[in-house]
Amino acid sequence: MSEQIGKYPFIVEPFSEDFAGRLSWRFLGNHLLRCASLHAGSRGFGYDQVNAHRHAWVLSRLVVEMEQMPCTGQHYTVETWVSKIYRQFTDRLFAITANDGSVFGYAHSIWALIDIESRQPIDLTALPAGGFAEAVSEREVPIKGAGRVRIKSTEPQSRHTACYSDLDINGHVNSIRYIEMVLDLFGKEIHAEGKTVKRVEMAYCAESYMGETLLLFADPSDDGRQQVEIRKESGEVVVKAAVELR
Amino acid sequence: MSEQIGKYPFIVEPFSEDFAGRLSWRFLGNHLLRCASLHAGSRGFGYDQVNAHRHAWVLSRLVVEMEQMPCTGQHYTVETWVSKIYRQFTDRLFAITANDGSVFGYAHSIWALIDIESRQPIDLTALPAGGFAEAVSEREVPIKGAGRVRIKSTEPQSRHTACYSDLDINGHVNSIRYIEMVLDLFGKEIHAEGKTVKRVEMAYCAESYMGETLLLFADPSDDGRQQVEIRKESGEVVVKAAVELR
Repeated sequence: MSEQIGKYPFIVEPFSEDFAGRLSWRFLGNHLLRCASLHAGSRGFGYDQVNAHRHAWVLSRLVVEMEQMPCTGQHYTVETWVSKIYRQFTDRLFAITANDGSVFGYAHSIWALIDIESRQPIDLTALPAGGFAEAVSEREVPIKGAGRVRIKSTEPQSRHTACYSDLDINGHVNSIRYIEMVLDLFGKEIHAEGKTVKRVEMAYCAESYMGETLLLFADPSDDGRQQVEIRKESGEVVVKAAVELR
Repeated sequence: MSEQIGKYPFIVEPFSEDFAGRLSWRFLGNHLLRCASLHAGSRGFGYDQVNAHRHAWVLSRLVVEMEQMPCTGQHYTVETWVSKIYRQFTDRLFAITANDGSVFGYAHSIWALIDIESRQPIDLTALPAGGFAEAVSEREVPIKGAGRVRIKSTEPQSRHTACYSDLDINGHVNSIRYIEMVLDLFGKEIHAEGKTVKRVEMAYCAESYMGETLLLFADPSDDGRQQVEIRKESGEVVVKAAVELR
C-alpha cells in the first residue's frame, strides 16, 4: 500500500519561518498544495493531465493540525495520498513527519474536479479507465473533521482589499493566503501571549479577485475554537474557517 | 576569482508564482536573502558566526533589476558574492541566471554589521584576522545604483497594520514583505494593464513591529520611476522605495 503514498522531503529554510523560528503557515500550506500537485502529477491526474481534458482541481476543504511546527534548519517530510473517492469529491490526506519517524502534524483536504467551461463538478466515480481509483490508500490520519462555523457578529473585525501579492497563478486569491488573513486576526495572542496555532480548518466557498474588499468576521465558538468568516461586501461567503490556539 | 562566488540552484515551484506564472517577488527576494545568508555562512561570516560576537547583519539597501522573471518550472541560479567592504557597509551583488548562461536579472545590496546591544555599526575594515576581505570578488553587475526618493504627497495612498504574517524570525516586518506592500500599490497596472516590474529599489531606514500602522505615500518621479515612502504614524520613515514598470 505504501507505493500509493508520495513522500517529499523539505528543510525549514531561513526566511520561511515566523517570528519564533517556526515554519510559517504560508510555507507549510503552500508546500502541502505543491506536494498534492506533484503526487497527482506523478500518478497521472495532475494539473496538466486533467487540464488536457479541460478539467481543473479545486480545493474545497483543508484541515491542518500540528502537534509541533518544524523549526529553522529542521528536516521534515510531507507524505500525501488519496484516501477516498466520492461522486463529486476526493479526500487527500497528509502526514508531516520528522526523520526519526515522529510526527509534526497531519492534514485532511477535500477536492473537486470541475469542468473549466461549465464550472460544474465531474463525476469522479465515472472517469474513463477507472479514473485514479488505483491511487487510493486506506491509511487514515488521527485528526477529527472540520466543525461547523456559525458567526453571530455583524461587525467585521478587519477588512482587506485583495491585491497583487495575494494572487496565485489562477488569478484569484491564493488558498493559503486566506489562512494568513485568518491567523492575523489572532496575531496578538500568537505573538505577545506566546500561544501557538494548533489547528486550522478552512472551507473554501467562493473565489475572490483583485480589488475585491474582504470583510473578516470572528466569533469564539462554545468548544473553544475561534470561528472566522471571510465575506465579500455583497455578503457572499468566501471562506469559513476555525482556528485552535494552544 | 570564481571561488568567491556562491551559486545556488532553484526551480520555480508551483505556488511560488504570481498570477501570470512568474516567480513572485516575495520568493525571489527571500531567495536572495537566503543565498546571502548561506554564502556568508559558508565563508565564516554568516548569521551564527557573527552572532557569536553579538553582532548582526542588517540589510540597508536592495536594488533588484530583472530583464525577465523565471516562470513555472524554469530553473534559475542565484549567484552571489561580496563586492566591496567599506568602513560601515559592505556591498553584496547577485546575478540571477538561467542554465544556458543567459541572465534573468541582477541585484545589488548594502549591509551593515551592528553590535546587537548598542545597535551601533561595527568597523568592517578593522575586524579581527582581516575580517572577510578575502571573500571579495571584483565582478560587477551592469545595473545602476538607487536614485533619490522625494515624496511630495501628504495623503497616504494606503495604510497597513503590521501583522503576524508580516514578521520574520527577528520579530520585525520582513524586508521583502515591504517590496510586496510597495508593488501592491501598482497592482492594477501589473494585473489589468499587463505591465511587469522591471526594477525595485529599497532603502531600509527603520524597523517596524507588530501592530504598528504603516502609511504608504507614493509619487511618480520626473524620470518615470514610481517613488514610495512607508512611514509610521509618527512620521518616522521605515522604507524609501522606487519601482520601474515596463
